[in-house]
Amino acid sequence: MSHDVLDGFVSAQRYAEVQHFYAYQMGLLDDGDVAAWAATFTDDAVFEDATSEPLLGRVAIQTSVQARVDQLKAEGRQFRHWFGMVNVTERPDGGLDTSLYALAMSTPAGGALTVHGHVVCRDHLVPQAGGWLVRRRHVAPDGI
Amino acid sequence: MSHDVLDGFVSAQRYAEVQHFYAYQMGLLDDGDVAAWAATFTDDAVFEDATSEPLLGRVAIQTSVQARVDQLKAEGRQFRHWFGMVNVTERPDGGLDTSLYALAMSTPAGGALTVHGHVVCRDHLVPQAGGWLVRRRHVAPDGI
Amino acid sequence: MSHDVLDGFVSAQRYAEVQHFYAYQMGLLDDGDVAAWAATFTDDAVFEDATSEPLLGRVAIQTSVQARVDQLKAEGRQFRHWFGMVNVTERPDGGLDTSLYALAMSTPAGGALTVHGHVVCRDHLVPQAGGWLVRRRHVAPDGI
Repeated sequence: MSHDVLDGFVSAQRYAEVQHFYAYQMGLLDDGDVAAWAATFTDDAVFEDATSEPLLGRVAIQTSVQARVDQLKAEGRQFRHWFGMVNVTERPDGGLDTSLYALAMSTPAGGALTVHGHVVCRDHLVPQAGGWLVRRRHVAPDGI
Repeated sequence: MSHDVLDGFVSAQRYAEVQHFYAYQMGLLDDGDVAAWAATFTDDAVFEDATSEPLLGRVAIQTSVQARVDQLKAEGRQFRHWFGMVNVTERPDGGLDTSLYALAMSTPAGGALTVHGHVVCRDHLVPQAGGWLVRRRHVAPDGI
Repeated sequence: MSHDVLDGFVSAQRYAEVQHFYAYQMGLLDDGDVAAWAATFTDDAVFEDATSEPLLGRVAIQTSVQARVDQLKAEGRQFRHWFGMVNVTERPDGGLDTSLYALAMSTPAGGALTVHGHVVCRDHLVPQAGGWLVRRRHVAPDGI
């Protein structure tokens, strides 16, 4: 099996774009700009996690996440989403399948950092004007 | 000294390949596929850490790590290896010397994340059919 | 807004260089080589954080950081700076503006890892002999 360990690796350009996209995307959310964050999803995007009903469409995603962000803001808590360990596979249709590790952490005003947990995120990305949008995100928290 | 701070940086293609290789490799281990993980080492690979005898050869590496993975599985604990802060240097023989930071963390079923510790990992990678295999891995945990 | 989500992304070469530069740079500091670390700043570099006066010039930066490194060494504590989630924007003058997430962590001899906190780091990088130097670094710790 070792001869094909690296089959299917994408170009450096694609790999850097995906890393950069995630830094950009999750920075928008952590900065509290939920509208701009939601704009990185397609109109018909689906957001799935292990503990609640799937969110169907960009509007539903934005509404749900805005509520969480408002709550964090009211608590004075700075949340951070750290993505890493990115795998990227090209799809025949021009899209990308990605999987990555993510750490969720936050710091209250004047307080200490808490690392809340680790999740595996799987995205289907579609090309859009030279960049990428999320068409489907599946988030699987460890331990659940 | 500042004029040559970046001498020896590898191409973006090489750098992305190495990052992608580590995400792929350690994902195999964290998913419990020890045979596929071991297949990312050469037959004659050496695995060294600070606290035990070196493991000599892919078979010895696979056997040792399978025992640890079986134990984690019995405990219902999801382990994650997070690699980052990657340095890559090209060797005259076509191989790569890498050094990187790694965080070891795990989450028990229904429980909270624990970050176990930080290690520095140094690899000698050799080219294989367009990809890479680990010929030697040296793991140095902080604090030991 | 979605049509221009990825406008302004840099080339894979630039993105990999910046990631590699940070792994190299902060590895120097964590290894205790403060002179080599300071050499990754310009002579006239400015280092700003939220809690003290700005450090003006490479000599001031090196002197201040050397004192901290000496203290960590006396305590037998291994510090690690982990940079990730990198954003890079090219400036019209040939430099780069970057922003990134950073985790500060350390491990005492024989002891357990502590994750001290999360900061957002914003750099102005200038080209130097094919590589990069920091002309200005602004560090904003979460929670302060």
